[in-house]
Amino acid sequence: MYPNKFERLIEIFERLPGVGNKTAQRYAFGLLDYSKDEIEDYINALKGIQEIKKCKCCGFLADDDLCPICKDESREKETIMVVAYPQDLMAIEKTGIFKGTYHVLNGLLSSTKGIFPEDIDIDNLLKRIDENVKEIIIATSPTMDGEMTALYLDKILKNKNILITRLAHGLPMGASLDYADDLTLIKALDNRREIKEND
Amino acid sequence: MYPNKFERLIEIFERLPGVGNKTAQRYAFGLLDYSKDEIEDYINALKGIQEIKKCKCCGFLADDDLCPICKDESREKETIMVVAYPQDLMAIEKTGIFKGTYHVLNGLLSSTKGIFPEDIDIDNLLKRIDENVKEIIIATSPTMDGEMTALYLDKILKNKNILITRLAHGLPMGASLDYADDLTLIKALDNRREIKEND
Repeated sequence: MYPNKFERLIEIFERLPGVGNKTAQRYAFGLLDYSKDEIEDYINALKGIQEIKKCKCCGFLADDDLCPICKDESREKETIMVVAYPQDLMAIEKTGIFKGTYHVLNGLLSSTKGIFPEDIDIDNLLKRIDENVKEIIIATSPTMDGEMTALYLDKILKNKNILITRLAHGLPMGASLDYADDLTLIKALDNRREIKEND
Repeated sequence: MYPNKFERLIEIFERLPGVGNKTAQRYAFGLLDYSKDEIEDYINALKGIQEIKKCKCCGFLADDDLCPICKDESREKETIMVVAYPQDLMAIEKTGIFKGTYHVLNGLLSSTKGIFPEDIDIDNLLKRIDENVKEIIIATSPTMDGEMTALYLDKILKNKNILITRLAHGLPMGASLDYADDLTLIKALDNRREIKEND
């Protein structure tokens, strides 16, 4: 019963991931209060999407050929952290602790979804590896697909005389022991460390 | 650390009501998968916002001068239901039970927010009232501002020889009695009805 132009706006918002009709209506009503300039901003941001590129070096999002991180001269090129998705890269960046560079696979191997090595950005990773690279940190999520991808990468990289490491698995900080799942507890026990004075 | 064009997209989504940074990122990544046509659709829907009008008769949203309900000849013009917002109208429409017309105030009187009768669409309501109007149903929410607006409308309409009614207050269907607040229980008791055979 809404007028057509408003219904179309609701439909558009319903296409966003995880948005139902009620939320889409709320967004549409929110937009009714926007000034002309704000709507112009919105339209320009959408037009910009088609200009967002994939970094030719690492596979992350980029305005130009290279992403902001690959352009940054201060990043240590001898360490490459391999992640599945741009969001994972951002999660690591937010910690501020990693000074190396990244490689974004833009996917994970999956036997159930039929995703094979040629479907994700592994080739570009191999091309990047030269004598300057000292360590590759495999930072895929500890899921079935993440583990499979990590094992595959380890297999094809291990004859290259580079240190291959993985992020540690164990109890997440602040978590309650009795809520941890069995696999996490087994990993945490397997990877237990001696307590040292400077810990 | 995201490229500028992607950061702008996230910022735009963060302006939507109730959307935080994490959700805005999810929406922005969702849009990266859109086809050119889908983005075009999105942009056109946004352009359409500026053409959405207020119905000259009832104050609801409209593509043209009149909204779809005021245009509909089959609606009974002798009953007008007064609601605060377009969303309230839609909530009633969804039930499918009301065949009359509406008047949308686009606001509620509020002493705390300083909203007075001239700030909401009361004048247009008065202009609509002629000898054909038999009943005005005041359907403002049972909140402080809603009650105040209902009382005000009752005061200015009661000398017009029209039946003025309000939506019933009481226990919501499916609600548990011991979770109902005191005011609702008092209203439910005050408005108790004799059980009849055809109930």
